[in-house]
Amino acid sequence: MTRIAVCAPATPITREHAEAAERLVADEFPEHTIFFHDQCFRSAGHFAGTDLQRLEALVELANNPDYDAVWFAKGGYGSNRIAEAAISRMNAAARAKTYVGFSDMGYLLAALYRNGIGQPVHGSMPVSARSERGREAVRRVLRWFSGDGSGLEPSLDGKTPAVAFNLITLAMITNTPLMPDLSGHIVMVEEVSEHDYSVDRLFFHLANTLPRIAGLRLGSVTDVPENDREFGQSVEAIAKFWCNRAGFPYLGRAEIGHTAANRIVPFGLASPSTAG
Amino acid sequence: MTRIAVCAPATPITREHAEAAERLVADEFPEHTIFFHDQCFRSAGHFAGTDLQRLEALVELANNPDYDAVWFAKGGYGSNRIAEAAISRMNAAARAKTYVGFSDMGYLLAALYRNGIGQPVHGSMPVSARSERGREAVRRVLRWFSGDGSGLEPSLDGKTPAVAFNLITLAMITNTPLMPDLSGHIVMVEEVSEHDYSVDRLFFHLANTLPRIAGLRLGSVTDVPENDREFGQSVEAIAKFWCNRAGFPYLGRAEIGHTAANRIVPFGLASPSTAG
Repeated sequence: MTRIAVCAPATPITREHAEAAERLVADEFPEHTIFFHDQCFRSAGHFAGTDLQRLEALVELANNPDYDAVWFAKGGYGSNRIAEAAISRMNAAARAKTYVGFSDMGYLLAALYRNGIGQPVHGSMPVSARSERGREAVRRVLRWFSGDGSGLEPSLDGKTPAVAFNLITLAMITNTPLMPDLSGHIVMVEEVSEHDYSVDRLFFHLANTLPRIAGLRLGSVTDVPENDREFGQSVEAIAKFWCNRAGFPYLGRAEIGHTAANRIVPFGLASPSTAG
Repeated sequence: MTRIAVCAPATPITREHAEAAERLVADEFPEHTIFFHDQCFRSAGHFAGTDLQRLEALVELANNPDYDAVWFAKGGYGSNRIAEAAISRMNAAARAKTYVGFSDMGYLLAALYRNGIGQPVHGSMPVSARSERGREAVRRVLRWFSGDGSGLEPSLDGKTPAVAFNLITLAMITNTPLMPDLSGHIVMVEEVSEHDYSVDRLFFHLANTLPRIAGLRLGSVTDVPENDREFGQSVEAIAKFWCNRAGFPYLGRAEIGHTAANRIVPFGLASPSTAG
């Protein structure tokens, strides 16, 4: 069993989201328990509570030995504002945990990975439990907690360390105190709601700032807004162009992104859940 | 007189844009000449011609001793793809020139400034010459070419070096081979068409990657898209928040941005045009 605790380091979810996830766990994964911190439902402007409220909830759950995993409720934007402070307060219990989320949660996953704290994992989040398609993405994580690796990104080979990030999140992390050393890693990136030219611009930044990585995989790039003209290259052509310029091997696509097909990528060397 | 040559390192303008700028120069600034390179009107997907065509036009004009200034036709996106290659091919004539533009042209201004090539200048561009309001922004640059400093950003004191950038452009430049050393500089930033949360995210990156600057000034932040909820802080509060976290003095507003009021900021120590 995995004792899961949920907080929202960026934006809030509703009680209905939490209830849908609790029902799914009770009905289909009785081997796990799931606890939603009240902070998940707070609101302060854009965020799920003030920076201090989000920080305190995250540190409280991470440092509590009664939980095996912290599952981030939702992305959005805002975990970057508390990541460094949270890391500095984490204890031995925090170092024994699994942390699951993606998109904006990449700031936390990066900082945890940089500091060798627990097992950071790219994976879907409880916010998706209210829709039928989203529920399948949530089940994938719950199965992984049970030791079932069928939801892992299929290219993971257990030999080359891997990470997965939202493209703009990774670009914002580069050269900050949250940035892990990605030398020798396979780096998977996905994006949502960005123009093609913005994707090109973000790859320009990564091509010029990432270290010698083992290769890049492109996840899905969804909800691209209409622009006043066609960019003239597909997002895969953009990824290949910048990989060529940077000397990064382009390794093909990855099944990650803001879709129900979003697969699991444990940071580092892929393995079934160690929290199960 | 200033002999001005125009190319388009990012996106194209139309012949009508060029004619409007030519008319303005002929009617009101007969002391100057202005030449539009045919590359300004080319098109290749998003860009004003292929990377190679844009690169060749820029290097041709920069290296031609018959021109005193290169005025970039328009921003958009794309000068980052050719900036490094252009710099590596610039000759002595290029080093004696003034370069004017802003927004996406920040990639080139940064690279020129880093390499001590000519006088990079944040200023409005010929694309604005077709509207009555835009024409006043274009006149401001033409007056500056004539030695009239009335269009300079009013906070420039001639003692502290200054630069001006579009916010996302500067964030993308950090730690790349285009990045100048901004230690001790007043850094002015402006933004257009980005959500408040995106502005916050970009300041997070700059707060964690810029060196010890003399201070930050916030230009206009315009055309902010509607979000599904209010961010809860004004853009000035966002700028102050991150300046405080980074230890950068927040110096107030600057009259730069994607508006007709956009003032001139010569990079380094402000002075009237040296090309006049």
